[in-house]
Amino acid sequence: MTAAPTVPLAGVVPPVCTPLTPDLRVDVRSLERLVDHLVGAGVDGLFVLGSTGEAAFLPDGHRRTVLETVVKHVAGEVPVLGGAIDMTTLRVIEHARVAADVGCDAVVATAPFYARTHPAEVEAHLRRVAEAVQVPLYAYDLPVSVHSKLDSGTLLRLAAEGVLAGVKDSSGDDGGLRALTVALRDAGTSGFSVLTGAELTVDAAFAMGVDGVVPGLGNVDPSGYVRLYRHCRDGRWAEARAEQERLLRLFGIVEAGAPGRMGRGSSALGAFKAALHLLGVIDRPVTAPPQVPLDAAETERVRAGLAAAGLL
Amino acid sequence: MTAAPTVPLAGVVPPVCTPLTPDLRVDVRSLERLVDHLVGAGVDGLFVLGSTGEAAFLPDGHRRTVLETVVKHVAGEVPVLGGAIDMTTLRVIEHARVAADVGCDAVVATAPFYARTHPAEVEAHLRRVAEAVQVPLYAYDLPVSVHSKLDSGTLLRLAAEGVLAGVKDSSGDDGGLRALTVALRDAGTSGFSVLTGAELTVDAAFAMGVDGVVPGLGNVDPSGYVRLYRHCRDGRWAEARAEQERLLRLFGIVEAGAPGRMGRGSSALGAFKAALHLLGVIDRPVTAPPQVPLDAAETERVRAGLAAAGLL
Amino acid sequence: MTAAPTVPLAGVVPPVCTPLTPDLRVDVRSLERLVDHLVGAGVDGLFVLGSTGEAAFLPDGHRRTVLETVVKHVAGEVPVLGGAIDMTTLRVIEHARVAADVGCDAVVATAPFYARTHPAEVEAHLRRVAEAVQVPLYAYDLPVSVHSKLDSGTLLRLAAEGVLAGVKDSSGDDGGLRALTVALRDAGTSGFSVLTGAELTVDAAFAMGVDGVVPGLGNVDPSGYVRLYRHCRDGRWAEARAEQERLLRLFGIVEAGAPGRMGRGSSALGAFKAALHLLGVIDRPVTAPPQVPLDAAETERVRAGLAAAGLL
Amino acid sequence: MTAAPTVPLAGVVPPVCTPLTPDLRVDVRSLERLVDHLVGAGVDGLFVLGSTGEAAFLPDGHRRTVLETVVKHVAGEVPVLGGAIDMTTLRVIEHARVAADVGCDAVVATAPFYARTHPAEVEAHLRRVAEAVQVPLYAYDLPVSVHSKLDSGTLLRLAAEGVLAGVKDSSGDDGGLRALTVALRDAGTSGFSVLTGAELTVDAAFAMGVDGVVPGLGNVDPSGYVRLYRHCRDGRWAEARAEQERLLRLFGIVEAGAPGRMGRGSSALGAFKAALHLLGVIDRPVTAPPQVPLDAAETERVRAGLAAAGLL
Repeated sequence: MTAAPTVPLAGVVPPVCTPLTPDLRVDVRSLERLVDHLVGAGVDGLFVLGSTGEAAFLPDGHRRTVLETVVKHVAGEVPVLGGAIDMTTLRVIEHARVAADVGCDAVVATAPFYARTHPAEVEAHLRRVAEAVQVPLYAYDLPVSVHSKLDSGTLLRLAAEGVLAGVKDSSGDDGGLRALTVALRDAGTSGFSVLTGAELTVDAAFAMGVDGVVPGLGNVDPSGYVRLYRHCRDGRWAEARAEQERLLRLFGIVEAGAPGRMGRGSSALGAFKAALHLLGVIDRPVTAPPQVPLDAAETERVRAGLAAAGLL
Repeated sequence: MTAAPTVPLAGVVPPVCTPLTPDLRVDVRSLERLVDHLVGAGVDGLFVLGSTGEAAFLPDGHRRTVLETVVKHVAGEVPVLGGAIDMTTLRVIEHARVAADVGCDAVVATAPFYARTHPAEVEAHLRRVAEAVQVPLYAYDLPVSVHSKLDSGTLLRLAAEGVLAGVKDSSGDDGGLRALTVALRDAGTSGFSVLTGAELTVDAAFAMGVDGVVPGLGNVDPSGYVRLYRHCRDGRWAEARAEQERLLRLFGIVEAGAPGRMGRGSSALGAFKAALHLLGVIDRPVTAPPQVPLDAAETERVRAGLAAAGLL
Repeated sequence: MTAAPTVPLAGVVPPVCTPLTPDLRVDVRSLERLVDHLVGAGVDGLFVLGSTGEAAFLPDGHRRTVLETVVKHVAGEVPVLGGAIDMTTLRVIEHARVAADVGCDAVVATAPFYARTHPAEVEAHLRRVAEAVQVPLYAYDLPVSVHSKLDSGTLLRLAAEGVLAGVKDSSGDDGGLRALTVALRDAGTSGFSVLTGAELTVDAAFAMGVDGVVPGLGNVDPSGYVRLYRHCRDGRWAEARAEQERLLRLFGIVEAGAPGRMGRGSSALGAFKAALHLLGVIDRPVTAPPQVPLDAAETERVRAGLAAAGLL
Repeated sequence: MTAAPTVPLAGVVPPVCTPLTPDLRVDVRSLERLVDHLVGAGVDGLFVLGSTGEAAFLPDGHRRTVLETVVKHVAGEVPVLGGAIDMTTLRVIEHARVAADVGCDAVVATAPFYARTHPAEVEAHLRRVAEAVQVPLYAYDLPVSVHSKLDSGTLLRLAAEGVLAGVKDSSGDDGGLRALTVALRDAGTSGFSVLTGAELTVDAAFAMGVDGVVPGLGNVDPSGYVRLYRHCRDGRWAEARAEQERLLRLFGIVEAGAPGRMGRGSSALGAFKAALHLLGVIDRPVTAPPQVPLDAAETERVRAGLAAAGLL
């Protein structure tokens, strides 16, 4: 570990996109430039191999390359969290060990998926993963992908016991997120980091007491999210709101892909990569199969969104 | 390939359980005895690394051991289908290539999961996987795990083009399954194998024109399913019904686990393994984490079910 | 009550469509002709104000007109079941009392919907409705509409106690349906009628031991379903299969409406009514708002389907 | 109409509970006291016959009594919105006309439910309901009950055309809610009222630009929500947050009912009524069947919650 994570981790922690070459290898140079783009903007950490990082689409070899590239290139300047996205415990532990071995400062795991599960099994899963690695574990609450929601009782228990170092909440349940932050405070649990993946209500989340944000759109406009965070941290709520609303309009690029042609995931990840390509950060907007690539007209919508947000 | 699959594959093709040791390795001896138990009962093929085989719970090393063990032990007596269960295309292709290299007669893949998907992406996914391996590809329709249903138009198109060799339908949609079999016949598509995973309505499925069945309970009572299939094949519908009803009652063991303690997956897989252990086929009823093991009282329910079905 | 229901009710019990006038009143003449069309074909009962009867779309005045018209016109020739489709207990009881007062032989109620519910509440609901009316109560299992599935334990208990006279199963879960029929037999429960709404697997359902079928398509081709039932009843399984497959192909008319223009409900109900109009049974193919009517090209698809099935 | 709604309606608009007698009639005296409790606390409007008002559980006669009682008792002091909760267009129109005739200032309708629907049908539904009544129409976005989410494009279109006067958003999608408020502003649409039902993030919602809140818990502590709103309106965000957190802790009473005994609806509505009973506002904590009543221990949890919040 070259850098201990802030305790608790706070601020802007983008889920780093994974640039690919036309023959579907990791584009290491582009990935390094993307890391520079993010760290240079002042982000507080990086989350690699999350959903935005196309972890679900990358073979293990690709995943290792991503982890090694980012950890080495960051060189301890900010903490690096590595996603260990897989179906169940033994598989997740293998990914988590690779991430820890490669030098990640923490690992991130979801509830089991594909297999039918149960709250008692989710808790046993997180406990086993935490025991298996020497670095802190963050739970990743992502019902849209794993089709179950992390139970707040489980989270509070695992936080109090120190099994979990934090949670990345992408459940979209802002009321539940707030109840969690209040319950953690009421329980006197410290050192547990609550990160939200809700990138359109970041000012609200910081006002409620969350510690950080993991914005997919932060790949495209990291400076915007850094400004937004700092406005919130320093109590400049009107400026925060204006910045958040600008980013909300920019977020419209995720609708670039025509609904009849592709799923919403292809559209959103395609738009982020198209934007990074248009901004000159990565060499190609290639997404992994079976995602449908954006066509010229769809890419033009991304360009228009960037221009409207003042990024071109 | 030591044995070409029947064209189309037909009959009873159990999804083979994966016996584990207490330290969570593949129990190779028990797996070989289970294969003998199944092949000796007269099954028509084996499907390894399906959901019942705990594919979602097994690291890649375990998976390879399972494939190698079964292919070698079967030695061409019946075709072996290898599951290539993973989230998206590139990952599935890696598993599929291992299965083919090890000597499986066919591979089996689901729609993408975890990532949000779309019918066009599902179709692209299956086409790419089929292109990447030299053995036939079966589609695995399992909405309870992957949270989308294979589109019948897609299946018909891929069947007609020869991209798919068959489908294992575990969607539970018997009307849709029948519409598929009729549409295949009306289109004159031949050599495409329709297998149902609905193990309580096997006689009905054969009466409708499906080719085979993939019954999880077939691990426990392969002879029952073989008798059931042969009754259907030979038009002894009353005998088929009586056998199916006996198996339906035996299937009650999947409810052995107390609902408050575990999920339905833990209960069902735990019951199959407990039954195989009580029958002396495998050495331990261990299931992979984070599944909750059956306790003594729950195991007793399995024993009672076996006894009632005349298996003890 | 002019006619006691068969104990248990068996055979073909179509869910009667509700013809409407252009100004959205009940078209009484057309409804009487539809009743003649069905009863004349030899059906064994009529289910009015079910989903196919657009109960969800009809104000209470319309519903009363439908009940009165059908009960009077049938004049005891076959039993009439009246749907009491509403959200929760007190509202359902009001509808059930109207149906009983008007002379229906039985009433039909779903689990509560709109309000979040629980198995204990579903059971309390059915018990209260049954107590409130003097005619037999059938439970209607329709998860696609009410978003919960009737629990088999609840059904078995209410069947054994005589609270329910039967169930109409439109859950699409044929394995569960079979488990129910076997469990009823094993428990020695008699006089309980199991009706399936799965109109593409009717032969299979009768082979499993269900008592009757409630086919929406039976509005269009009641003679086909009557033949199918009689083949099954008399053990002519090959003839049954051929008839069922003809009806399955005819069922393709429910896809007449273009997916981009309307929901699947508009398409299916629109197709049934278009078919009845093309067959000269009802005066207009009007469906209730906010359903989207079929256009000329879509209606042409219905005509082609009728022709292919030998009905035109 | 004795009082025109504020344009746009803003502030605190509680969804009024419906007190019942032990024999399940509307308890008119208790309802009047509840109205006094709310209006006396300074709320800005009342929403009767919403989900919290048990509209789904009340027969039409009860509903009319509620509307008449509240409209008469309020006597124009604040606007009254009447829920027209039913499955589809013609049924909703009947309820909406009653509400308008009785003197409600506006009516509130959801998307169609029970019947399968489609965005084009939802839009047609809202247009027809709006045309059928002379008072403003609010759309009620409640996916947990109706199982579809109102499409933002539809809302923006109907807002721009003046078909809708506002929306009550209980979707829990705060990002979508914010995108709607920004899109309305960007489109220059005025006089459209955005109300949130998310009662744990009210300060955040006002900070984002919503106009009002419809808090179920506002029945229990209307003064708390009025203070919260006024803090937000006047920019006292720290005070707003403290008040919201107090209310969030109080909201814990909705978990009073044991999960194994009842659904979450029974628990929440039971807790609100138990609280109102303990506070002396209503005579009985009776909820409508088939809801399970809270028992003594569960009621004690409600009492403890009230005490902790300083209300007893």
